[in-house]
Amino acid sequence: MTTPDGFQSSALHAGIKKRDGLLDLALLAADAPVPAAALFTTNLAQAAPVLVSKRHLAESGGMARAIVVNSGCANACTGDDGLANANAMAQETATALGCEARHVLVASTGVIGVALPMPKVIAGIRTASAALARGHGSETARAIMTTDPFPKEYAVRVDTGRGSFTVGGTAKGSGMIEPNMATMLGFLTTDAQVPPALLQRALAASARRTFNAITVDGECSTNDCVFALASGASSLAIDEASYPALLEALLAVSKALAVDIVRGGEGATKLIAVTVAHALTEADAFQVARTIANSLLVKTAVHGADPNWGRIVAAAGRAGVTFDVDRATVHVGGVLLFEHGLPHDDAAPQAAEHLKGTEVTIDVDLGSGGDKQATIWTCDLSAEYVRINGEYRT
Amino acid sequence: MTTPDGFQSSALHAGIKKRDGLLDLALLAADAPVPAAALFTTNLAQAAPVLVSKRHLAESGGMARAIVVNSGCANACTGDDGLANANAMAQETATALGCEARHVLVASTGVIGVALPMPKVIAGIRTASAALARGHGSETARAIMTTDPFPKEYAVRVDTGRGSFTVGGTAKGSGMIEPNMATMLGFLTTDAQVPPALLQRALAASARRTFNAITVDGECSTNDCVFALASGASSLAIDEASYPALLEALLAVSKALAVDIVRGGEGATKLIAVTVAHALTEADAFQVARTIANSLLVKTAVHGADPNWGRIVAAAGRAGVTFDVDRATVHVGGVLLFEHGLPHDDAAPQAAEHLKGTEVTIDVDLGSGGDKQATIWTCDLSAEYVRINGEYRT
Repeated sequence: MTTPDGFQSSALHAGIKKRDGLLDLALLAADAPVPAAALFTTNLAQAAPVLVSKRHLAESGGMARAIVVNSGCANACTGDDGLANANAMAQETATALGCEARHVLVASTGVIGVALPMPKVIAGIRTASAALARGHGSETARAIMTTDPFPKEYAVRVDTGRGSFTVGGTAKGSGMIEPNMATMLGFLTTDAQVPPALLQRALAASARRTFNAITVDGECSTNDCVFALASGASSLAIDEASYPALLEALLAVSKALAVDIVRGGEGATKLIAVTVAHALTEADAFQVARTIANSLLVKTAVHGADPNWGRIVAAAGRAGVTFDVDRATVHVGGVLLFEHGLPHDDAAPQAAEHLKGTEVTIDVDLGSGGDKQATIWTCDLSAEYVRINGEYRT
Repeated sequence: MTTPDGFQSSALHAGIKKRDGLLDLALLAADAPVPAAALFTTNLAQAAPVLVSKRHLAESGGMARAIVVNSGCANACTGDDGLANANAMAQETATALGCEARHVLVASTGVIGVALPMPKVIAGIRTASAALARGHGSETARAIMTTDPFPKEYAVRVDTGRGSFTVGGTAKGSGMIEPNMATMLGFLTTDAQVPPALLQRALAASARRTFNAITVDGECSTNDCVFALASGASSLAIDEASYPALLEALLAVSKALAVDIVRGGEGATKLIAVTVAHALTEADAFQVARTIANSLLVKTAVHGADPNWGRIVAAAGRAGVTFDVDRATVHVGGVLLFEHGLPHDDAAPQAAEHLKGTEVTIDVDLGSGGDKQATIWTCDLSAEYVRINGEYRT
C-alpha cells in the first residue's frame, strides 16, 4: 500500500481485539490532501464509518489526506453514539496530522452492534500518527484482517512512453465469524497524478470486474468499502490518453486482491472462476455467472469434485436472462460436458480430475449471438463454512 | 389426492428406480376431461414433460383427464428423444383411458440428462391404468418421491351455505441428490365445479403464498410444476361469491404441503417462517423475506441456535427494497432483538432458547408506513446439506 510514492502508514494493537498483540488499528496518510475515490456498500443498513466517509468525500470534493481503519469492531448498528465515535476517529486523526476532519476517511470491520472502546481507539490513533512511515504496508494489511486466513497486498509498476507510475493496495475479505458478517475493505494507492473524477471513474470501472465480481456467499455487509488515493508524487499526469494504463494497473492490483479474498473465503478449499461468454450484454453475462457462482448446488458439487453440468445448466436457466438450452455449452476445466441440449457423460471423469484441484474453471457459452462476456470468482461450499457460521457466538 | 369425488389413482414400481419395489410411476385420472390449471417452473431450461404439458393445456383449452407422473428420471436435458418420450407417455395414457393425448398432463422428477427406460414406462402405464381406484392416494404420494424423507398429502372439506366441496393434494419436494436437483411437484384435486379460468386464478393466487413462498436453497428446477384438476363431482359450482371459499381451501392444502416440503428439505433440522410486515407493497415484503430466507449466514445461525439479529438486518438491508435501519424491528421467536437501530442483547438468551426448537419464527417489521406483509418458509443450513450435495455421483 505504501509502494507508490507519497504514502506512509502505520499499524498497531490498540486493544479493540481482545487477544493481546493482534494488530487492530491502521493509518494510511498522504503528505497533503490528494484526490480520492470511493465505492461503498449498497446495503441500506450502513455502518457509521460508511456514512462519515461518504459525507467527508462530498464535503471535500473528492480529496483526502488519510484513512483511519480499525478491525475487531464494525461500529455498525450503534446508533447516534456510533456516528459520534466515527466522527471522533476522523477528528482525532485530523488533529494528529494537522488537517481538516473532512480530509479523513474512516473504515471499520468486525463485530456489529457493539460500541468502539473509544479511549483505546483515540490513544491508538495518536500513537499511529506518530509512527507513520514507508514500508509498513504488511503490518497494515494484517491490521485490517478479522478472520481472514492470510493478509492480502499487491502492487504493480507501469512504464508508459511518457513516464511511470505505481499502483498498490491491500484488502480484507470474507471472514464472517465473530459474530456477524463479512466486510470487504480495499485500499488502493497510486503515485500517478489523477483528478478526483477520473480516479473515481477508473476505480468504478476496475471494481466492476474485480471487487464487485467476487462472491463467497452472496452476502453484502454494512461496512464494505473500497478507497483509492492518488498522491501525484510521480511525474505522470493521467489524461484520457494514459487512462487505459491507469485502469489496467488498477485492474491488475484489484483482481489479485479480489481473487485472494475468495481464496481466503470461509471454509473455502477451491477457487472457482465462472466465465459466461457470448451473451447479448455484459450485464446478462454477469447475471448468469453470478447465479451459477452463488448456486449452493454448484458450490457443493465442486466441493465434492462432481462434474455436475446439470446444476450449472439449471442455475443458468433460472438467472433471469434469455437462455436457450439447445445453444448453450458447458465446459468444466476446459472439458466439454454439455452441448446441443445433451450431456457428454463420457467426458465426466476427465472433468472430475480437474475438480480435484484447487483452481476450478466453469465456462458457459450462451450461444446467444451476442459477444459479451464476464467472469465471477467464487469458492466451494464446505461443511466447514456451516461449522464456522453456525457456531453460537458465546 | 383422491379424497375429492371424481378421481382415481394408482401407483406401482415400473423399474425406473433401480431399487426393487420402490414406487416410481403414478396415474391420476378423472372420469372425463375436467377443468385443469397449472403453474410451471420459470427456469428457461425446461424439461420435456413441462413442454408437453404446457402444449396440451393450451390445445385443450385448460381441460385434462389424467396426469401421468414418474420419479427416478427427470427426462430433462434429453433433447428430441426426451420430447418424443414425454409425448409417448401421454399417448399411452390416453390410449389406455380412451381419451385424447392433449387431455393428459405429464410430470417427471429424478436424474437429469438420462433417457427414460421407455419399455418399462409403457408397461407401467398400462398396468397402472387398469389398476385405477379410489383410496390409492398414499401410494401415489410415495410414488412421486425422490429423496423426500416422507410423503406429503393433505385434504380439507369445506361446507358453504350452498353446498360443500373437498380439496386434496400431494406434493414432493426438495431432495436434490442422485445426482442433480430438486424438483417440486404438486398435484391438487377438487370436486367443486370450477371453470378453467377461475381454477387457474385460484391456483396462481394460492401458490403465490404457498408453493412459491418456500425455499430450501434458492434453486428452481427444470421440472417444477403444480397441477390442479376440478372434477365437478360435488354439487357446488364455484362463482365469484364462493371463490373465496375455494381459494381458502386451496391455500390450506397448498400451505400444508409446501411447509412439509421445507420440513423435508435436505439436511433440514428446523422449519423457519420469515415474516416481513409493514412494507409498502406485498412484493417488497416478499423480496425482503426471501432475501433473509436465502441468506446462508441467517440459515447457518439458526442451525447453530444463534440469535444473530445482525445477519437478519444485513440481509434485509441488501434486499433491494427501501429499508430504514432506525425504523425496523427484528423479533426471533417473538423476542424483540433489534429496534431504533440498536440491539437488545439482554434478550439474546431467551431468543436462543427459541432457536433450539424445530419451529423458528423470524419477524421483521420494516416500519415503512405501509401495511403489507408476506411470509417465506425456509429451513436451516446444515453440514448434512453439504454432505448430501457434495457427494460424487458415482
